[in-house]
Amino acid sequence: MKPSDMTVRIYRGPITESIHRFHLAVVNTDGALLHQAGDPHLLTFARSTAKLIQTLPVIESGAADHFGLGDAEIALCCASHNGEAEHVSAARGILGKLGYTHEHLQCGAHEPYHAPTAQAMREQGITPTTLHNNCSGKHSGMLALSAHLHAAPDTYMSIEHPVQQLMLEAVCAMSGVPQELMHLGIDGCGVPVFGMPIDRLALAFARLGSPAGLAEARASACRRIVAAVRKYPQFLAGSDRFDTRLIEVTGGRIIGKMGAEGIFALTMPEEGIGFVLKVEDGNQRAMYPAVVEALKQLGLLKESEVSALAAYHTPTIHNWQGTEVGRIQPDFQL
Amino acid sequence: MKPSDMTVRIYRGPITESIHRFHLAVVNTDGALLHQAGDPHLLTFARSTAKLIQTLPVIESGAADHFGLGDAEIALCCASHNGEAEHVSAARGILGKLGYTHEHLQCGAHEPYHAPTAQAMREQGITPTTLHNNCSGKHSGMLALSAHLHAAPDTYMSIEHPVQQLMLEAVCAMSGVPQELMHLGIDGCGVPVFGMPIDRLALAFARLGSPAGLAEARASACRRIVAAVRKYPQFLAGSDRFDTRLIEVTGGRIIGKMGAEGIFALTMPEEGIGFVLKVEDGNQRAMYPAVVEALKQLGLLKESEVSALAAYHTPTIHNWQGTEVGRIQPDFQL
Repeated sequence: MKPSDMTVRIYRGPITESIHRFHLAVVNTDGALLHQAGDPHLLTFARSTAKLIQTLPVIESGAADHFGLGDAEIALCCASHNGEAEHVSAARGILGKLGYTHEHLQCGAHEPYHAPTAQAMREQGITPTTLHNNCSGKHSGMLALSAHLHAAPDTYMSIEHPVQQLMLEAVCAMSGVPQELMHLGIDGCGVPVFGMPIDRLALAFARLGSPAGLAEARASACRRIVAAVRKYPQFLAGSDRFDTRLIEVTGGRIIGKMGAEGIFALTMPEEGIGFVLKVEDGNQRAMYPAVVEALKQLGLLKESEVSALAAYHTPTIHNWQGTEVGRIQPDFQL
Repeated sequence: MKPSDMTVRIYRGPITESIHRFHLAVVNTDGALLHQAGDPHLLTFARSTAKLIQTLPVIESGAADHFGLGDAEIALCCASHNGEAEHVSAARGILGKLGYTHEHLQCGAHEPYHAPTAQAMREQGITPTTLHNNCSGKHSGMLALSAHLHAAPDTYMSIEHPVQQLMLEAVCAMSGVPQELMHLGIDGCGVPVFGMPIDRLALAFARLGSPAGLAEARASACRRIVAAVRKYPQFLAGSDRFDTRLIEVTGGRIIGKMGAEGIFALTMPEEGIGFVLKVEDGNQRAMYPAVVEALKQLGLLKESEVSALAAYHTPTIHNWQGTEVGRIQPDFQL
C-alpha cells in the first residue's frame, strides 16, 4: 500500500505524538472520480457502511411492507446504534412483528455504545442482550427477510442463506463489483462483510442517494431508505453520535454512515455524490475530523455546519482527571 | 513526517483491512545507531517508558532506602500495572511507609487493566480508587521522593516541584537531551511527560542496562532498578501482559516497557543495547507484534522465545461470538 500524505495529527501539548493517514474517493453516479486523496482504489472492507445497501432487499422483497415496518424500523436496520432504550425497543418491535424474540438474533451481546446507558445498566445489574448489540437492527431486518422468504431462521448468517445471497447481490450491483471479485470476510457480529475498492463503495452510495438510473423497484427502495434515515437520524446511531448529528446539522443534505476500522461512507442525494474515506490504520478517532475537514475543503459543508460539528472536527483530548492535554487536528490540503 | 514502509497488517479473512506503520531506533551506549527503520529520530513522547528512568532519583536521593522500599516496590514504581490485588497492595504498602493513604495520590482512578479483576470488582460493586490506576506505583514513588525532600506533598505533579525537576534532570541526562530541547506535555495521570527523538530514548535505555560509563551513584541506581524489575516482572505489568512475559521468557536478558500511544522501549544489559519502537498512529495492537518480529529479525530473541511469545507476535482477532475473523501479521524486513 502506497502511504497517503493526507494526515490527521494527534497533538499532546506542543508536539505531534501520533499521526493517522487516510484515503479518499469521491465519485458521481457513473463512478467517475471527482476528488481523491491517497489511494482512491484502496481495497478494504465496507463493514457497517454496507448496512444501508443491505437493507435494499428487505424492502424490495416485500418483507418490510408484509411485516409493516415503519421508517424508524427501516432506519434501525441501517444502524450501528447506541443501544439506548428507543433502539432496543425498536429492535424488539421488529422481532415482535415476526413472532420472534431477542433469542432469534445471533449477533451476540455487548454493552450499549451509549456510555450513560451502559453505566446505568451496570449500576442496576442489567445484563446486555443481543438487542443492545449495535447491529441488532440489521439482524432483525435479516430475520424479517428470511421469514418473508420462508427460509430457515437459524442459518441466516451463512453466506449460502437466501438472505445473504440477496444482500450480496445488492452490494455487488450497487457498487458495480462482480460477485467473483467481491471479497468476503466475517464481521464483528458474525455475518458476511464485503471487501472492495473504496471508490466502488462510494459509487454504491452515490446511487443510493441518486437512484434515477436504476430499475424502478431498486430505485424506489433506495428512496425509501434515504427518506427513513432522514426522518429518523436518531435511529441510525443515537445521542452524541456523528452520523446522527451530520444528518441533523445538514437537514438531511448529507447522509453518512460509519463502519468499524475507520471507514465512513456518505451520499449527497441532490448532488449525485458518493464519498468514502478510510483511515489507513483503522482508528475511528481520526475519521470524523478527516471527514468534516474534507467536506469543508470540498465546499460541501457550510461554515455554520462545520461550526456545529466542531466537537467531531477538532476534538480535545483529556486525561483521567479531565484536564485537557492535547487535541486532534486535521492536517492536509486536498 | 516521512511515512515508514515498515508495516504490521490487520487481516480480515483473505485481505488486509488496515495497516500500521512504525519507526525503530536501536543504539549502543554511545547513542550510535546499530539498526533503524522508518525515522530513527522521530520526535514523540516517551510516555510510561520513562518510568524506569524517573525511578532513578527515588533511589539516588536516598528516599527508597530511607523508607525501606523493597525490590517489588521499586518495580511497581516503574510499572503500568494491571491493578491486580498484589499491585494495589504494594502501592498501599509504599504509601503506608510514608504515613500516607490513597487520598494523597493525584493520578485519578480507573478500572484495573486486568479484565478479570475489573469484572470481579463490578460484580461486587467495588469502586476503583487511585490505587488501581496503572500509574499508582509511579505516583507513590514520587510521593516518597517528595517526603524525603520535605517538599510539599500536594503539588508533586507540577513541573516546578523538586520531584519533577529531579526526574526531568534524570531523563535529560540519561537521554543526552538538554533541558531546553526536552518537550514537555501532560500524561494521562497528570504528571509531566517527556518528548524527544526515539533514538535518544533508546540511549537512555542502553545506559540504564549498561551504566558502566555513568557516575557511581547513578550507575548503582540503574543496577538496582534493573535487578528489581528482573526479580519481580509481575510488578512491572502483571498477568497476561507482554512486558512481564518478555522478562520471564528471556530470563531477564531483555527488559522492556510499554507506553501509551504505541511506544515500546527496552534494554539488553549484557549487550549494551537500547531499542525503541513507535507505532506511527499510536495503536498498541501493532506494537507487540512489531517488537517481537523486530527482535527476531535482529537475532535478539531465540526461536523458542519467539514461540513462547506467539500470542503477542501474531495475535488472532475474534468477533463478539468468539469466532476467529482475522489476524495481526508483521509484514516487514529490517
